[in-house]
Amino acid sequence: MNALTAGSIDYLAMGAAVLGTGGGGDPYLGRLMAKQALLERGEVQLLDPEEVPDDALVIPSAMMGAPAVMLEKLPNGNEPEAAFRAVEAYFDRKAYAVLPIEAGGINSCIPVYTAARLRLPLVDADGMGRAFPEIQMTTLSIGGVKAWPMVCCDERGNKVLIEAVSNPWVESISRAVTISMGLASMIGLYVVDGRTLKRWCVRGTITLAMEIGRRIMEAGRSKLDPVDSILEVTRGYRLFEGKVADVQRDLTTGFVRGKASFEGLEKDREGSFELHFQNENLLGLRNGEPCAVVPDLITVLDRETGRPITTEHLRYGQRVTIIGMPCAPIWRSEAGLALVGPRYFKYDLDYVPIEELARRRGP
Amino acid sequence: MNALTAGSIDYLAMGAAVLGTGGGGDPYLGRLMAKQALLERGEVQLLDPEEVPDDALVIPSAMMGAPAVMLEKLPNGNEPEAAFRAVEAYFDRKAYAVLPIEAGGINSCIPVYTAARLRLPLVDADGMGRAFPEIQMTTLSIGGVKAWPMVCCDERGNKVLIEAVSNPWVESISRAVTISMGLASMIGLYVVDGRTLKRWCVRGTITLAMEIGRRIMEAGRSKLDPVDSILEVTRGYRLFEGKVADVQRDLTTGFVRGKASFEGLEKDREGSFELHFQNENLLGLRNGEPCAVVPDLITVLDRETGRPITTEHLRYGQRVTIIGMPCAPIWRSEAGLALVGPRYFKYDLDYVPIEELARRRGP
Repeated sequence: MNALTAGSIDYLAMGAAVLGTGGGGDPYLGRLMAKQALLERGEVQLLDPEEVPDDALVIPSAMMGAPAVMLEKLPNGNEPEAAFRAVEAYFDRKAYAVLPIEAGGINSCIPVYTAARLRLPLVDADGMGRAFPEIQMTTLSIGGVKAWPMVCCDERGNKVLIEAVSNPWVESISRAVTISMGLASMIGLYVVDGRTLKRWCVRGTITLAMEIGRRIMEAGRSKLDPVDSILEVTRGYRLFEGKVADVQRDLTTGFVRGKASFEGLEKDREGSFELHFQNENLLGLRNGEPCAVVPDLITVLDRETGRPITTEHLRYGQRVTIIGMPCAPIWRSEAGLALVGPRYFKYDLDYVPIEELARRRGP
Repeated sequence: MNALTAGSIDYLAMGAAVLGTGGGGDPYLGRLMAKQALLERGEVQLLDPEEVPDDALVIPSAMMGAPAVMLEKLPNGNEPEAAFRAVEAYFDRKAYAVLPIEAGGINSCIPVYTAARLRLPLVDADGMGRAFPEIQMTTLSIGGVKAWPMVCCDERGNKVLIEAVSNPWVESISRAVTISMGLASMIGLYVVDGRTLKRWCVRGTITLAMEIGRRIMEAGRSKLDPVDSILEVTRGYRLFEGKVADVQRDLTTGFVRGKASFEGLEKDREGSFELHFQNENLLGLRNGEPCAVVPDLITVLDRETGRPITTEHLRYGQRVTIIGMPCAPIWRSEAGLALVGPRYFKYDLDYVPIEELARRRGP
């Protein structure tokens, strides 16, 4: 697959939501924007990182803030381009391609939109291989890539250029700017050259997301079990079969923090599961024992259809299958775990890879 | 007087605090910074607006946020220059001079500091002729001058460039940025050419502030009454002689909102006075009747020394003289009152010039 068409956007958004581990918001509007741009401007070429020249300039395009807000505060459609162009202007160079920064509902669609509008190729990679809530939480950060110059644009025409002393400072300032813009902005940031891209990005995120999405959406026709089909392509694990018994959410910190409890069904009938989240799902406890820990991926799927359920959409009584998937290996480095390990999120436990936890549990 | 020396900074800070109408914060640190820069770099030339060529670029330099915070979060000293240089870089032009944006404790000192450090002259003018709490509240706004490009710099080295669709949007975004930087930033904004400066600035603010300051500080020696001496040079009015009976402050909105009540002394023995403030003093009621209304200036002075008392420093039992002074005439225009009239600050009354209120009261 080397081109993205309007027809592939549903696969992409669906699969990216699986990799989005409960966060990333509802991609409804982003999906419409990307489809429309592809229909109007033509398909977008998908580049393998190896196809990007070492000295080429590549700019990520994304949305920051609360995706739900975009449904009431519609983008005018020029913001992603304005942010992207402002980053180009900072370097006084034209970009060679657009890069997704994370896999998640809306932020898998926005870079496609930007690429289609600017008639640039999209790199089949990203900066997380999943979704995370804060700007500094990228594999690029591990490689010492600066998140700045970062540009935030809103639908009115306001534009802010941030230069900061560290990536966490980019996060703090851009968060404040995005809130002042009404909780949503379109951003350009984390500029990389081809050499850096090849060294520090997570590869194949777009094709993986599309493959996951295709497997879910075609499961009905093929009579394959969609969950099995997802686990096959992500090398993941079934963590629990159950139904939602309780959901607690706390919004006071600007993030959706909380936990959900699940009662077991079928072979897990005697068991229980507790899922802790902060925008994204971060920690899964099966019968009180950790079975998946951030940065490994935890996603709640509808038991019948295999479709991912975001933390925002968890409801009492839903029948679900909870799966876990290994994260990109670079996250398991010391630097990676310092950025996004369980202790960063204030969970008092050490990271253990999901494969190891599965081994300990036994078959 | 056509040069500013370290010796004149105390006069300037003292007089600017009178024009600062209770706001503008404690100039302690700004005064030290300006003095030090003048001692190290030499005196700063003070330019009459008429001396600025029509096409010359003039850039205001100021501090934004909570002055009190600066005492714990010390500037590194390069921020004002960094913000100023970033605005120059935006236009790819060198500035001809530095302009104060308001008269008030700290923001009369910062532009002197910047001018001394950059060895540029300072224009004897400002954008308010007093102090106001928000970025869009300048006489330049009335003239349609854009507050942006605005640059905010902090002591760590973070730098943010704001381009916005209106001056109130510059206020909203820069306020969020300044809060994220820890409640204080150094800023450059409201770039003007010489022609615009002459048309829309308030002239003579620096020399007026220094003259007021000199009169207060020399009153002891000259045996003149310092309050009479201030009223002479500002064409102001004694509004009330009294002592502080009560002060209510509410900080929840990010500003210091509240009111102070005064009991009368001597000829005002039977009377009372109520002062409403939002950072700056905005409304004075004498025996329940308005006697001075924003944008006219209201300042509380120590009865003995004539020294100004900021709203932050009002304390029960202080013996004070409350004075009122006419604002720059441009504030009395329809556009001026829309920006800073009493109704903008949610007081349910119309503006009446202080001279008219004095006439109605009689001698």
